[in-house]
Amino acid sequence: MLDVAAVLEARGRVMEVARQTPLDYSYTFSERTGAEIHLKLENLQRTGSFKIRGATNRIAFLDDDERAAGVVTASAGNHAQGVALAAERAGVDAKIVMPEYAPVSKVEATRAYGAEVVLHGVNYDTAQERAHEIERAEGRTYIHAFDDERVMAGQGTIGLEIIDADPDADTVVVPVGGGGLIAGMATALKADDPETRVIGVQAEGASAMAESLQKGSRVEHETVDTIADGIAVGKPGSHTFEIVRKRVDEIVTVSDAAIARTLVDLLERSKTLVEGAGAIALAAVVEEAFDYEDDEVVVPALCGGNIDLNVLRNVITRGLVEDGRYLKIRTTLKDRPGALEALVEILADARANIYGIKHERTSLDIGVGSTDVELDLETRGHEHVARLLAELEANGYEVEVLV
Amino acid sequence: MLDVAAVLEARGRVMEVARQTPLDYSYTFSERTGAEIHLKLENLQRTGSFKIRGATNRIAFLDDDERAAGVVTASAGNHAQGVALAAERAGVDAKIVMPEYAPVSKVEATRAYGAEVVLHGVNYDTAQERAHEIERAEGRTYIHAFDDERVMAGQGTIGLEIIDADPDADTVVVPVGGGGLIAGMATALKADDPETRVIGVQAEGASAMAESLQKGSRVEHETVDTIADGIAVGKPGSHTFEIVRKRVDEIVTVSDAAIARTLVDLLERSKTLVEGAGAIALAAVVEEAFDYEDDEVVVPALCGGNIDLNVLRNVITRGLVEDGRYLKIRTTLKDRPGALEALVEILADARANIYGIKHERTSLDIGVGSTDVELDLETRGHEHVARLLAELEANGYEVEVLV
Repeated sequence: MLDVAAVLEARGRVMEVARQTPLDYSYTFSERTGAEIHLKLENLQRTGSFKIRGATNRIAFLDDDERAAGVVTASAGNHAQGVALAAERAGVDAKIVMPEYAPVSKVEATRAYGAEVVLHGVNYDTAQERAHEIERAEGRTYIHAFDDERVMAGQGTIGLEIIDADPDADTVVVPVGGGGLIAGMATALKADDPETRVIGVQAEGASAMAESLQKGSRVEHETVDTIADGIAVGKPGSHTFEIVRKRVDEIVTVSDAAIARTLVDLLERSKTLVEGAGAIALAAVVEEAFDYEDDEVVVPALCGGNIDLNVLRNVITRGLVEDGRYLKIRTTLKDRPGALEALVEILADARANIYGIKHERTSLDIGVGSTDVELDLETRGHEHVARLLAELEANGYEVEVLV
Repeated sequence: MLDVAAVLEARGRVMEVARQTPLDYSYTFSERTGAEIHLKLENLQRTGSFKIRGATNRIAFLDDDERAAGVVTASAGNHAQGVALAAERAGVDAKIVMPEYAPVSKVEATRAYGAEVVLHGVNYDTAQERAHEIERAEGRTYIHAFDDERVMAGQGTIGLEIIDADPDADTVVVPVGGGGLIAGMATALKADDPETRVIGVQAEGASAMAESLQKGSRVEHETVDTIADGIAVGKPGSHTFEIVRKRVDEIVTVSDAAIARTLVDLLERSKTLVEGAGAIALAAVVEEAFDYEDDEVVVPALCGGNIDLNVLRNVITRGLVEDGRYLKIRTTLKDRPGALEALVEILADARANIYGIKHERTSLDIGVGSTDVELDLETRGHEHVARLLAELEANGYEVEVLV
């Protein structure tokens, strides 16, 4: 089983390619939670996530023949970029199989780090099958995303950095997909101080590790569904599961809604961009998914920042809606002069800022003499939304809330 | 005229409330520009911008009577938050007049720092008039946003931090609205080393300082128009103008399109959120709005991160469109079975990811037997967009590009 010596040995190798990421005290989240929150900003890691650490350490173990034959893996995201840059820095050829639906931004980034990208299959499983075919046909070494002790040892170096920067950390909170990151980090943290709590966090829609721990054996979920695509894994690794069982104190789950809210809060308040998996550890703290004391030193690992911008737009919208700060409604106007102005006046009096109006005079599905209007509104919280809707209804408008 | 002693004296006061912000080497932008780019991450400052520095220093100069009477100012954004927190920390009462259209997020943040917010007027000028009325009626001290040497001295402490962290900086690039930030920074930087270049950057739509320098006297622009609202100032200050004229090497301008692209690049690549004014200094480097050598050490000041999230969504969209990575089109389908499927197949073959389809069967403004369809597409760059549009036209679709 992975031991701390392997993590300590990995550190020098990892630091040749990766950077030591900041551990920043957060006023905002400390004030909000009562704990003393230090954010491990691994979203600022090269390639935008911690995966570069494990990939670098794994590739350092290749012998000369393996180096000459190159490596291969399958990934739709962060592991692809991590292996690509780690291989490029080690002078090893890399082929990465990515599903055909993979976001352009991630495909381009992987190519930019010097890997050959093979687009194949409609999902991760078919991409993985193709990667294993390439492994056999070309004699390449397959780099597993998590279930490999050398990969885990690389990820564990984040734990060493937390120990160095903040020796008083009481609780470290870590996102869990396959379990490679938390296995490595828990190994480092528990070896330093067995009293340090290590809490894992999964998305409610991808909670195989949490369930496996409860059952005492590995469970596979046929489908996973979460905005935290970086940890949307259906089954824990066999190696990672054993380590997590032994060294992790607790695994909790968090909803996608909470992840979205925290992602938006981090962006707005801390000016830092994380992906869904990067927000989940802090979301677990904010949601009190586990118990902690006032002034307890809590370190959530913000493990990655690679969120596709098209997805980000939708998450921002969702986060604003969750906060009652954005409202999209449809209503019907009598088709007579001044009807739109009258509606706008009600909104202005209620202090809702109007971002957009879509006024359709051509719809057939409403009565003659009426027109449909869609409104994008900035609102001031849930109470304001409720008051606004009541005000519109009191004035005779039938309102459909679109988001 | 402001001298470096005032900036050095300001530092201790400023640091009681503000934080020293990081100066981070950027792989991404160094590679892209050929220069050695170090980003001054003032967007991570408390209250989200540098304004807290000047406000803190100004308030430290109040005598006992002035402290008892409180302060007042007008601002739609960063200065409001800076004065609010600085006053709260100094135990001084603050009233901030904000225009009625001010984004909810900024109003709420200003209140959260303990200031009383007065919403008044449709624009900044009317808010400012009201603030001066309050100044006279209540005997409060008006805190100017830039044209006050004690404010400038506070902002100048950013220059001291750059000198400390990176004594080899060849060129420092600074956003310019009214000129308070660059006046303070240039005073600090030139006193340390007259060879350090100080370049100011304005938005093309708010370039009064640049024009004033050319004319040799202060010019006022009646209207300003830029997404960089933090520097949308129509006229330089009289004090700032004299200092800029003496100590700044050059003022250049940058388009809103370039600002949006850089803002999106910083978010996507550096995982850091800036507002328009926070992106403009780096945009000037990327756009080569001024000359620099390979490996020249260039320090763009990312002066703030307070962008309303509703605005951010639009800027992201614009940035993606600029990069050819997002396309919204409308076309018309024959209303027969399989028509939509045929269109989708063409898009799939061209490898455009479909984010959204809006299929309107009810529009009146097209011929009978046809329906309108709107498509949200992820594309792979300008070439891909051109190919895709040509492909659709070759298949007989009339395409209207919406964004």
